[in-house]
Amino acid sequence: MNKIYNPAPETWSEILKRPTKTIDDIETTVKEIFKEVQKKGDEAVSKYTSIFDGIALDDNEVSQSEISEAIALISNELKEAIQLAKSNIYKFHLAQKTDRITIETTEGVNCWQEKRPIQKIGLYIPGGTAPLFSTVLMLAVPAAIAGCNEIVLCSPPDKNGKINPAILYAANLCGVTKIIKVGGIQAIAGMTFGTETIPKVYKIFGPGNQFVTVAKQLATQFGVAIDMPAGPSELLVVADDSAVPAFVASDLLSQAEHGTDSQVILVSTSKTLIDAVGNEIQSQIAVLPRKAIAENAIANSKLIFVENSTVALQLINEYGPEHFIICTNEDDFYSDEIYNAGSVFIGNYTPESAGDYASGTNHTLPTNGYAKNYSGVNLDSFMKSMTFQKITEKGIKNIGKAIEIMAEAEGLQAHKNAVTLRLKQIELRN
Amino acid sequence: MNKIYNPAPETWSEILKRPTKTIDDIETTVKEIFKEVQKKGDEAVSKYTSIFDGIALDDNEVSQSEISEAIALISNELKEAIQLAKSNIYKFHLAQKTDRITIETTEGVNCWQEKRPIQKIGLYIPGGTAPLFSTVLMLAVPAAIAGCNEIVLCSPPDKNGKINPAILYAANLCGVTKIIKVGGIQAIAGMTFGTETIPKVYKIFGPGNQFVTVAKQLATQFGVAIDMPAGPSELLVVADDSAVPAFVASDLLSQAEHGTDSQVILVSTSKTLIDAVGNEIQSQIAVLPRKAIAENAIANSKLIFVENSTVALQLINEYGPEHFIICTNEDDFYSDEIYNAGSVFIGNYTPESAGDYASGTNHTLPTNGYAKNYSGVNLDSFMKSMTFQKITEKGIKNIGKAIEIMAEAEGLQAHKNAVTLRLKQIELRN
Repeated sequence: MNKIYNPAPETWSEILKRPTKTIDDIETTVKEIFKEVQKKGDEAVSKYTSIFDGIALDDNEVSQSEISEAIALISNELKEAIQLAKSNIYKFHLAQKTDRITIETTEGVNCWQEKRPIQKIGLYIPGGTAPLFSTVLMLAVPAAIAGCNEIVLCSPPDKNGKINPAILYAANLCGVTKIIKVGGIQAIAGMTFGTETIPKVYKIFGPGNQFVTVAKQLATQFGVAIDMPAGPSELLVVADDSAVPAFVASDLLSQAEHGTDSQVILVSTSKTLIDAVGNEIQSQIAVLPRKAIAENAIANSKLIFVENSTVALQLINEYGPEHFIICTNEDDFYSDEIYNAGSVFIGNYTPESAGDYASGTNHTLPTNGYAKNYSGVNLDSFMKSMTFQKITEKGIKNIGKAIEIMAEAEGLQAHKNAVTLRLKQIELRN
Repeated sequence: MNKIYNPAPETWSEILKRPTKTIDDIETTVKEIFKEVQKKGDEAVSKYTSIFDGIALDDNEVSQSEISEAIALISNELKEAIQLAKSNIYKFHLAQKTDRITIETTEGVNCWQEKRPIQKIGLYIPGGTAPLFSTVLMLAVPAAIAGCNEIVLCSPPDKNGKINPAILYAANLCGVTKIIKVGGIQAIAGMTFGTETIPKVYKIFGPGNQFVTVAKQLATQFGVAIDMPAGPSELLVVADDSAVPAFVASDLLSQAEHGTDSQVILVSTSKTLIDAVGNEIQSQIAVLPRKAIAENAIANSKLIFVENSTVALQLINEYGPEHFIICTNEDDFYSDEIYNAGSVFIGNYTPESAGDYASGTNHTLPTNGYAKNYSGVNLDSFMKSMTFQKITEKGIKNIGKAIEIMAEAEGLQAHKNAVTLRLKQIELRN
């Protein structure tokens, strides 16, 4: 833990610096695998599944009997928890539906905006020790609300050729249309180009290691959209003496256990609180199963004292945290004035893990300062906004002249002609 | 013109293929200029302005007196046209404002979604013979409605060190906060890294040649967002015998005059209409000032006959046109069922140029098939969606158990602890 007192604004960018990784080595590997999958399809996918996941699969699509088996394996307790989470996520994302917006901008000129689903989407869910079935909920639930036709999920098989049953249970519950046992770069390449068994999709969502991250970035060069650029998870807490130090410490630690590169920052106007949280971290960390990871992240953490809430806010907006917890006597000030944050958690009884799992908000959020320019995943992430217009004779008479003048001034005569022809015909007829 | 009759679905992708360009050569140049601007700031920017625009500028910021001069140079007629367009664009984008969406997903669990402006944005407006002041309106008007603090506009100076007065007039009218005389790769690099005179921005909007396009793509590797990937402009018209051939031809030509690589497609269930439009194109093209460009684009155009409207729709959704004009007896069928299009124009009196200039819809739209996964520029393009949550003691008691179970199942003990600690404290207190 690094305690920092009253840092000068010109030092903020250095203090708040995120770790950067060089991706050049990875890029070469990713490009090679993309080329091979584009050319050879399933043959290449199988080859890399065999190399990276250590298993040769005859059929990589999850069957209905595998899903039934998975459902039977999940405890009722976990099923109920997942259903509660799903219900809250559903409610919150359903509320984000927007109606068609119609406006007559000038008499006879009717314009409207409508959102329509992206027809084919792909979800990537990593394998490994922590099966992220919660991410399945966060992506498949809004995709289904949006009305996406094809919802493909790719996740790597384990050594026995299986996907974790909780992932299968959640995918089946939330309307995923096809589940494929393929992971890593080959999964992203498969969804980018399409293979005999993996459908080509228009947009890819979901977390992953750095190989998956680079692969998603490469996918964008082939016409596929992605949810957002990814980076290590991060949490910034602002707290004063109204906060409970044990709670704050537990939130910082729940971020720290994600990975050694997780970013954990406490900003406070109280030196007492900073010391108390520091002590709490020491005692809570000792008993964590992922202690080694958390200790590493905590070693790089920053506990920053600032003079007042105005300075605190400036510093936080400069950082743009993925997760932002507010536990102060000035909660409204912070929640009204924060411009750069992915998701905001307010008050002593609002831990980050509520949003990670079950409150209803989405946990796929912009990291690495992208809160300055990207939204977290929400219903609109699965839709496109389209515009429509229908102009009457009266309407084109009302705006035609302006179009002609502007088109002429931009040197685009054919643009002008398209209006002139119509205006002439109307004139002739009347 | 290529007339194609009843193409088999398996040939569609070949017929609808867009021209692809290799960008490898350009990429090296772009990367070099980025490196130099990052390192040397304004010195590098001046160097490249001198090389590419042939002028050395002492001061690259547009002064108030230059703006006043520009205002005086614009005719009243053009001013009025621009003001009408601005008013319609303003109305349509203002209507896109969304309220905070609040929902209590479970008793005591209050979640809300709110959109907040991206604080610093950059607009790129190309120079050259056609001064795209209309694009200034399309970008600056919604940016101002969104509430972006800093709206920076970069556009290259001409040989006399000036920016076209119509661009300056529109920028000043629409609330651009800073106008800088810099173009091309060096402008995008400047807004990506910031220099002594060019502010660093969070998101860059606007069209440009292939150098600018590649530069914008590179900018995304440095944490800057962009409006969308760019490609040549395109128009697809679906028409039957209810359409006026001269109008359809004029619309196809207004697309064709943009550039030799413009995409122009007519889909029709009427052979008579196809022939009539073909003849109209020949007679209208002869008198166009940009005839040479339009002829080139028209040579690559496709006039496609299909048996019925169901097949037509499938083909159109497969293509995903930037602009889509519908002039048929089945307008509602097409406008209801089109999933992949940037902007849709309905009826004989709705030319594409209406949307390009003055109806109120935005003309910055997804090309190159990106209508399948990207929205055109709209109010939300200048904002980020953020989520908030505030949970009461009652709320955390309601969902705490589910969070504990899910966190445990994902192997994230510290996430569970953050809830357990709070539940214990509540229990102890009661």
